[in-house]
Order: sequence, then structure tokens, then C-alpha cells
Amino acid sequence: MAKKVVIVGGGIAGIYVLRNLLARKDVVEEAMEFTVLKREKSGWVSTCGLPFALRGWYEIERTEINKPQFFLDQGVDFRTETEVTKLNLEANSVALKTGEELKYDYLVIATGRKQFVKETELEGVYTFNDEGDAEKIEAALNKEGVKEAYIRGRGIIGLQAAAAFSTRGLEITVHGGPPSLLPSSLDPDMGDLVKERMEKDGIRFILDRREITAIKGHEGWAKSVVIGEKEVEKEEIPADIVIIGKWMIPEIDLAWKAGVDIGESGGIVTDRAMHVKRGRGHITNVYAVGDCTEVVDAITHRPRLNQLASTAVTQAMVIADNILSDIGEQPGLYSPCEYCFGPTVADVGGVVIGSVGVTSEAANRAGIKTISGKATKLVKARYFPGATPLTLKLIFDAYTRKLIGAQMVGEATVAERVNELGVAIRAGMTAEEIRTMERCYDPSLSLLIDVTIDAAEKAIGITPVY
Amino acid sequence: MAKKVVIVGGGIAGIYVLRNLLARKDVVEEAMEFTVLKREKSGWVSTCGLPFALRGWYEIERTEINKPQFFLDQGVDFRTETEVTKLNLEANSVALKTGEELKYDYLVIATGRKQFVKETELEGVYTFNDEGDAEKIEAALNKEGVKEAYIRGRGIIGLQAAAAFSTRGLEITVHGGPPSLLPSSLDPDMGDLVKERMEKDGIRFILDRREITAIKGHEGWAKSVVIGEKEVEKEEIPADIVIIGKWMIPEIDLAWKAGVDIGESGGIVTDRAMHVKRGRGHITNVYAVGDCTEVVDAITHRPRLNQLASTAVTQAMVIADNILSDIGEQPGLYSPCEYCFGPTVADVGGVVIGSVGVTSEAANRAGIKTISGKATKLVKARYFPGATPLTLKLIFDAYTRKLIGAQMVGEATVAERVNELGVAIRAGMTAEEIRTMERCYDPSLSLLIDVTIDAAEKAIGITPVY
Repeated sequence: MAKKVVIVGGGIAGIYVLRNLLARKDVVEEAMEFTVLKREKSGWVSTCGLPFALRGWYEIERTEINKPQFFLDQGVDFRTETEVTKLNLEANSVALKTGEELKYDYLVIATGRKQFVKETELEGVYTFNDEGDAEKIEAALNKEGVKEAYIRGRGIIGLQAAAAFSTRGLEITVHGGPPSLLPSSLDPDMGDLVKERMEKDGIRFILDRREITAIKGHEGWAKSVVIGEKEVEKEEIPADIVIIGKWMIPEIDLAWKAGVDIGESGGIVTDRAMHVKRGRGHITNVYAVGDCTEVVDAITHRPRLNQLASTAVTQAMVIADNILSDIGEQPGLYSPCEYCFGPTVADVGGVVIGSVGVTSEAANRAGIKTISGKATKLVKARYFPGATPLTLKLIFDAYTRKLIGAQMVGEATVAERVNELGVAIRAGMTAEEIRTMERCYDPSLSLLIDVTIDAAEKAIGITPVY
Repeated sequence: MAKKVVIVGGGIAGIYVLRNLLARKDVVEEAMEFTVLKREKSGWVSTCGLPFALRGWYEIERTEINKPQFFLDQGVDFRTETEVTKLNLEANSVALKTGEELKYDYLVIATGRKQFVKETELEGVYTFNDEGDAEKIEAALNKEGVKEAYIRGRGIIGLQAAAAFSTRGLEITVHGGPPSLLPSSLDPDMGDLVKERMEKDGIRFILDRREITAIKGHEGWAKSVVIGEKEVEKEEIPADIVIIGKWMIPEIDLAWKAGVDIGESGGIVTDRAMHVKRGRGHITNVYAVGDCTEVVDAITHRPRLNQLASTAVTQAMVIADNILSDIGEQPGLYSPCEYCFGPTVADVGGVVIGSVGVTSEAANRAGIKTISGKATKLVKARYFPGATPLTLKLIFDAYTRKLIGAQMVGEATVAERVNELGVAIRAGMTAEEIRTMERCYDPSLSLLIDVTIDAAEKAIGITPVY
């Protein structure tokens, strides 16, 4: 009889488990049946593409890469607007709000993340997580008289919202905690480069510990945000649009109620095959994937959250491999999930930021002393098209001299460099090895002495060749 | 007394030894004196930039990055149009054609490469190695009636010349050996992709073993090239311009006459500090650098030539480090030269080719059996600017499953990917590890499942997710 795979959650994590299994259809043939249960009414949406839709690059609808019918046509029981009320791990079943009970052979928990936002009756106040949010924000941007925006959050969501609003001509205030932007990816000196670039576009930043104490409105629409508790620190910021881009936490309610272990980071604990944990053991037919899980950091060796689509897709590959291995298809095709190196890249209104490994602060919190080097250089000779500057910071373990982190702010080549330096961290390359490593050269594409060499030389106290 | 460093050759290799030492001036202060002896009349020329000058991107003069005066102003005895007649390693001196004898404490042999070209009286027949060649070619291109070009050589020089001539509207025939283009970098299936792209631009290719048997002229100017020995294989190709872009060999005459060991590849043998070898020992105050040296291949473990500017600059760094270490400055700052991974990138008229590690054929010649995977994909989602296709081939050792080679044909991200996969080869990453490694993602910059994943999956026999 065909094995039933039930996937709870239809975000990128759940969809990619499904896509990986469907891709092996030639192998699994009649061996498996798939059910996807998702709360939203969409099929497969590229949520990472939504900020670019707000920047006007394409319509929001374009981010729905496959409609539900696409999966139905492939024989998947793809259910939208479906609420799961309980995971019954003893009975190998899932209960729906409708009362229906679905049996599974393999369960995949892909419930994503949620946000704590204060309830408000006002229009003009939004989160920015899915296509529904994007549609509401798009409508607000097109409303007459909407001129000022307040954005809570200095992470990627907050900054991408700010960049999108900037191209639409709004006055923007971004408000986040101290001391600098994107602190999970960038050291303060690098975060400040991003801030300076965005300030040139007229975006205003407030980075302090004040919280929102009130959102004031007029005729049911947001008018201003009040921050600060004490009278002396209170500030009222005019805002026709308010975006709440922080307080994201793993959506683990169903898993927690089913007795699955939740880790110190707030995410679901898994083994390296992405099996969930309960007490001393792992449940080998129940997997968790994506934003609802915690990962183990490659440098600090501690659990943490890494809520990125790129993490979800590698976990999804591992889960598909393990299910296929378990049912005896593709023997040997089991794969384990790797330590998380956290490669990250984001285009924030033309400023591209990248990071991989740990920040200096994360290293210090983990008991690792560091040396670092930072350099700025064009990515190719000045007289070639696309010769833009890149600032690169390399962070090394002060004892082993091995690379443990890299950060970049530039306009081009950032994504590919993040991947390269991720491999270098994984390879345990030292500052000295990075310095003398040959890099490919064509004057229209690269420099003879790359910024990476300069940053490595600075880390070990050598004057770079200019 | 200041130590005298004499550098024979003023190409990129020699200049970079000088630049590295000058950059540490704060450290070396009065400890060193520098002499550069070069045959040409120029200062520091970016020869790699010349093909782009012929494509019309900038004037040929722009490729002279520093004039001789730049180095003279820094106290360097920088001598142009100077011929060295003998290296006297016993006496630690160098003899010039003028009869002058220069003493050295450290000698750097940076004599580059030379080309065997049949003597001809005809105008219109050129090599393409330096700014002098480029000026002659530029003048010929601007001559009335020059319409047809014959290019001998299917390597980077030949193809870049063809690309430049193509933008100038010439009819072009490129003639090289069988079976495919750029055989030291690309397998035939990948080389054929380059050929197809260039054929679309109207460039004609002949890939066979025929040699030039005559160059015919009219009123002192080239008119046609005859290839083939036997009557039945003879072919006459009309050509107002003839470029000879092959038969490059290390220029080792001075070194050889001085008793320095020449390796099986024809280049000067060095140790890992780039000291030259003589008999059983190394001469610790005589270095060789750049195109005149042989390297040791990281995969085959055999000597070979790798005449690239990128190789020269890493060797130059090693030499500068070792001289500084030897004179007691910057203690500890000695560095050894690495095995050669041969990272290569070249823009050939908009087609960008990249490679690192060995080709399938080079692996087979070295006794290594391989598995490989090839995939083609856009570098980012179709609706973002710059979403161009990239074909990537990954070559693995069939026994260890470790990456030993990578080849690319595309338009963007090639240089950075060559560097990434170079680190992956160095790290000994397997196909399986490359497949499940997380890569950074932003829809405007990358894909969720990169072409690298697809190529790794194909190498291990898994159907990629589309």
C-alpha cells in the first residue's frame, strides 16, 4: 500500500519537501501519497520576492509561482484554507478543524513562524510576512495622502520595506534597537555603512530601546506612532503607514501540544535527519522543517534560529532523502543536515549586504576571541562596466587563525562571495591561506589583488599592496 | 648596507615582486635597494587589458598603469629597453648588453614567455602579446580594405582576438587543433558551447591538425594563409590580418645558461618559496616567478605550465615574504607557494568561461577516473535584471567522490563561482556535501536551488528538482 506523507504547512519549507519527493516520481512511482495542509489560500508563493513587488519590479501576483491546481494535477491532496487542530503522534494522525482525521505514515511539520503584534482597530498598520500583507500595503501606498511611514525593525524585513517605500517617495522612519542595523549579520561598523547609504536616500533611523506605546489614528486610519514609556523619552512620529517587522517566533503550538521537544531558542529540536525529538528519543516518522525549527550553529556549536528560505530548502532535501531511504527507494540516498553556517544575502534598495558564519559579537558571546580585517576596493578595474566598491570584513578565530565569519556591503558579487567564504569557513582556511590563495583574473571581471586578500592581510597585520 | 634586489623582467610577475616589497616600505625602510631590468620601454602594463582595448572599450595607452617615472620617483632603479646578457650566479651579478655588471643580494628571474613565429616580411601578420602588438593590430584594423582575419590558436588569446575583431566587423576564421576550444580549461562538451556562441556572431572555426604552410601577400601586405601539407588537405584562407596566438613557451634562456634546472614542462623548477633549483640544492637568494616557471598541479601532483597573471601575483607575494623574512624584517612572515588549482576566467566577447582544477582529460591522463554532472540554469529568477543562463560542469574523483574540477560557460557570476569551487576543491568537498550545502538566497540575486546543486545531483545520479 502507498505510504502517506502529510505535510502541515505550505510555505517554502513544506513545498520543498513535496517538490523533492515529486521530483523522484520516477523512483517512487506508486509508493507514496501526498497531502499538504495549509492555512492560506495560495499555492506556492515566493515570499522573499514580495519586497521587490512593492518596489514596483513586478505585480504581487507574480510571486505565486504555482497555484494549488498545479499540485492537484500531480495527484497531490493539496488543501488550502485548512486548519489543523491537533497532531496525534501516538495514532499517527492529524486532526482538522472540520473534524476530519487524516492518517499518515510520515508527518512533516512545516508550520513556519508567527509574529506578536498588538491588536489595533486602525487601518494602515501591517505586518509584512505574506502576500496578504503585501496586497494591503500596496493598497495603502496607492491611497491618497499617504506620505509618512514608520517601520519597526532594523532587520531584513524592515530595511526591505524601507527601500520599497523609498522608491515610492514616502518619508520613512526606521526604528529598531541599538546599536546598529542587521545585528545578527553585521558588526556595528558594517551595519553603519548600510545606515549611511540608506540615509543618503532620505531614510531616517532611530536605534534605541524605546518601544511603541501607542498608535494614534484619525477616522480609523493610522496617523502617528508614539514611542517611549517615560514622559521625557516620549516621541510622536507621524505615520500614515506603520509596518511591524520584528518579534518573529517559531510557530510551534501544534508540535508543543503533541509533546515534541522545543529547544532553548524557541524552535523545534531535531536530529540531523530532521526527525523531531521527544524526551530521550527521536520519532523517526515525524520531521520538522523550516522556520519552526532550531539549527545548530557551525561556529558556536549552540542551537539558534536561522529563519531563512535557504535553510528550509536544504532541510527539505534532507527530509526527502530520509523518507526515500526509509521506504527502501534509492538505497543509500540518506543525507544528514549540516551545521548551520548561515549564509545570508539581501538587496536592500540597491545596497547588497552579505554575511556568513558568526559576527564578532556572536563569537565573543560563544567564548571565541577574534582578529579581523576590513578593506574596501572596487570589484574590478575602474574602467570596466560594473566596477562598484565592496567593503569586506573577515573574522578569524584568534587562536586557530581560521576563518569564522565574513561580512560584506556592496553592490555586486556579494551573493557569490558569501558562498565562497562559506566554503572557506567550512574548509577551516586560515588568514594566511586565504591571503596566498590564487584567485581567477580577467580585468573586465576581477582585480589582480582582490579585496579578500587585502582584508586577510589587514587581519594579520600586513600592509596591503595598493 | 642596504640589500640589493635585482629583478630581471618587468611584466606583471616582476612588477608585483617590486610592488609587494615597496608596499612594506614602512618596515624595510633603508634596508633594500631595487633594480628592475626590462627590455620593453613601458612601465607597468596590464597586458590582460589589451584585448578589451581592441574591442574599443578604451585606448591602448590606458593599459599602461604606471609609467617608468612612477617607480623612479620611489627610488627604484627602473631601467627600460635594457637587455640582460648573463646571470652570473656564482658572482651574484647580472651582466647587461652594455657591458655593465650589476651585483645583487637577491635575484628575481621574471623573464616571462616567448613565442615561436615563422619569420615573414609581410605586414598584417602579428602576435598578440604586448602593447606593441596591440598598437600594430589597431593600426591594421583601421587600414582601408582590411576585412578578413585568420587567427591561429583556440586558446584565450586567439578567442579574445576573434571577439575583438568581431566587434570591428571583420570576417574571421579561427584555426586551432582538434577537437574543441580551450582544451586546457574546458572538456569538449563545454568548449563546444563556446564555439556555438561565437559561431552565432559569425566567427568560423577550423579545428584540425593542419599547420600553416604559407602566408601569401600582395604588395607587402598579407592576403591569405595556406594550411595543410598534402595537396588534398590544402586550403587557402583569405586574410588581411593574421594573428599567431599559440606556441608560447617559457623564456628560460638566461636561466638555463646559468645552470638553473628546467623542468619537464619547459619552465624553471622552483621550491615552494620560489627559489630556483640547481642539481640537488636550491639557491636561496635566486627566485623565479611568473610565466617562465613551472607549477605543481594540485590534482595530478605533476609539474605543468600555468601562464596566468593570477599565478604570477601569488608567486610574487611569496617571494616578497621570503626576502623580507630572510633579511630579518617582519619575522615570521615567510609564506610557501601553494599547489596550483589553476582558477581561470575569461570574457570572450560577452561569453564568460571559467574553470578550476582539472579537465576530465587531464584527470584521465593522470590516472584518475571521474564522475561528472552538468546542468544549465538561470543565475537568478527570470523576472530580475541580469538573469542569464549558466552551464556548469562538476568533475569528481570517482573513488573519493571529491571535487577535482569545475567548468563554466555563461555571462555572469562566473569569476566568483570559479573562486568558490576552487575553495571547494581545496577543501576536498564531495558531490554529496556540495549538494546539501546551504547557499545564500535573495530572489533578485540567486536561485533557491542553484545550478551547482543540480550539477552535483546529476553527478551522483539524482534527478534535480525543477
